[in-house]
Amino acid sequence: MAEGTDAKKATIIVFSGTMDKVMAALIVATTAAAMGIEVTMFFTFWGLSALKKGGIADCERNWMQKMLGWMLPKKAADLPLSQLHMAGMGAGMMKNIMAQKNMSSLEELLQMAVDLDVRMIACQTSMDAMGICREDLLDNVEVAGAATYVGVAQDGEFNLFIS
Amino acid sequence: MAEGTDAKKATIIVFSGTMDKVMAALIVATTAAAMGIEVTMFFTFWGLSALKKGGIADCERNWMQKMLGWMLPKKAADLPLSQLHMAGMGAGMMKNIMAQKNMSSLEELLQMAVDLDVRMIACQTSMDAMGICREDLLDNVEVAGAATYVGVAQDGEFNLFIS
Amino acid sequence: MAEGTDAKKATIIVFSGTMDKVMAALIVATTAAAMGIEVTMFFTFWGLSALKKGGIADCERNWMQKMLGWMLPKKAADLPLSQLHMAGMGAGMMKNIMAQKNMSSLEELLQMAVDLDVRMIACQTSMDAMGICREDLLDNVEVAGAATYVGVAQDGEFNLFIS
Repeated sequence: MAEGTDAKKATIIVFSGTMDKVMAALIVATTAAAMGIEVTMFFTFWGLSALKKGGIADCERNWMQKMLGWMLPKKAADLPLSQLHMAGMGAGMMKNIMAQKNMSSLEELLQMAVDLDVRMIACQTSMDAMGICREDLLDNVEVAGAATYVGVAQDGEFNLFIS
Repeated sequence: MAEGTDAKKATIIVFSGTMDKVMAALIVATTAAAMGIEVTMFFTFWGLSALKKGGIADCERNWMQKMLGWMLPKKAADLPLSQLHMAGMGAGMMKNIMAQKNMSSLEELLQMAVDLDVRMIACQTSMDAMGICREDLLDNVEVAGAATYVGVAQDGEFNLFIS
Repeated sequence: MAEGTDAKKATIIVFSGTMDKVMAALIVATTAAAMGIEVTMFFTFWGLSALKKGGIADCERNWMQKMLGWMLPKKAADLPLSQLHMAGMGAGMMKNIMAQKNMSSLEELLQMAVDLDVRMIACQTSMDAMGICREDLLDNVEVAGAATYVGVAQDGEFNLFIS
């Protein structure tokens, strides 16, 4: 199923579409990949927003799916924070603090994951439900279903679900 | 602990009581079960709502537990969506889209899980805390505690916590 | 990496800072530890609030980190409930019910975890981002990074992410 069959494996399901949780997923993924583990990230439901290119490609969508497209974040940089909504500036404040501390941004972590050969899968079923088409997503992303996930997860040293 | 001791095992803790997260849990569970894995789902805290029959059985409950019973969803079909509350129609819109795409509803996925012999456990401690009694829950559900979960999880190929 | 290298291991990432989710994490952790499993809990992002001593130590923080310190819970007993905010009294109601049922409080579960030698790690990166310093946290807590987590998780019988 994976490239080097003897290497240790890990999987992370990214169900959440919030900046802080996707960032946590990417920090674990890139750390594990840097330690020689073959990491598969499976993006589903709200998590798909993290893989969007920005802009909305010209695909067939019904009106409800179009509405969903307008309401959801258009790309990784637009993801909101899961907490501190009231403060309004939640996500901006966090980005600010992280920049000051020289931490990697979400987009940089995504690129790092690609560079470290983290396998990125977008969930086919969620894409269909939400009206997200292949062209909406970043180039490095595979499209597959839950059976592919289960196939990899049963060989994983650790398997996380980030909701 | 499990029926066929040589079969691969997996566990999923369902802590969330939202439609989208319970659905994700059931999609992984039924996919894995269809691939021959023995799946145990452990429903706890808000996740218990997914196992309710509908209606409130005639059990002993104090006034706070009664209030909790009124505030929480009465059955799987009533679960809200974890996102897009503002839109109001969140859960309804999603059900609509899924019906158009011929996807299984939450209730159908629950039945499919039962048919595939997915073991469904309701957390005893959460039931006590929330004033949920055996009669509130679907017939196929076992009642057990955290030690039962840990016993199964330590033999699991993958173990997820869906919060 | 861990003390007794032959013992079974488990890890739990606590990302959430809500009473119910941290409690679920601690119930699994103490149950597993009581069954002889070496449990490592890794507290990150909002989950760090559960390890705070109460009060804000005299550390260097910029104004945004100070603001974050005011907005976030000051100790485990202050954690809000993840659901039922509208009811206002959510966390209080739940504590009340649990006290009536003689269930352990969050603080008691934390102490139980310490007594059962559950290893508690606070995430260095999150502490830096949020302006939390060592003196803000309980004495039994280690400070380490994601590589330490991955090192333990790859030997874990089960590994959970509680978001």
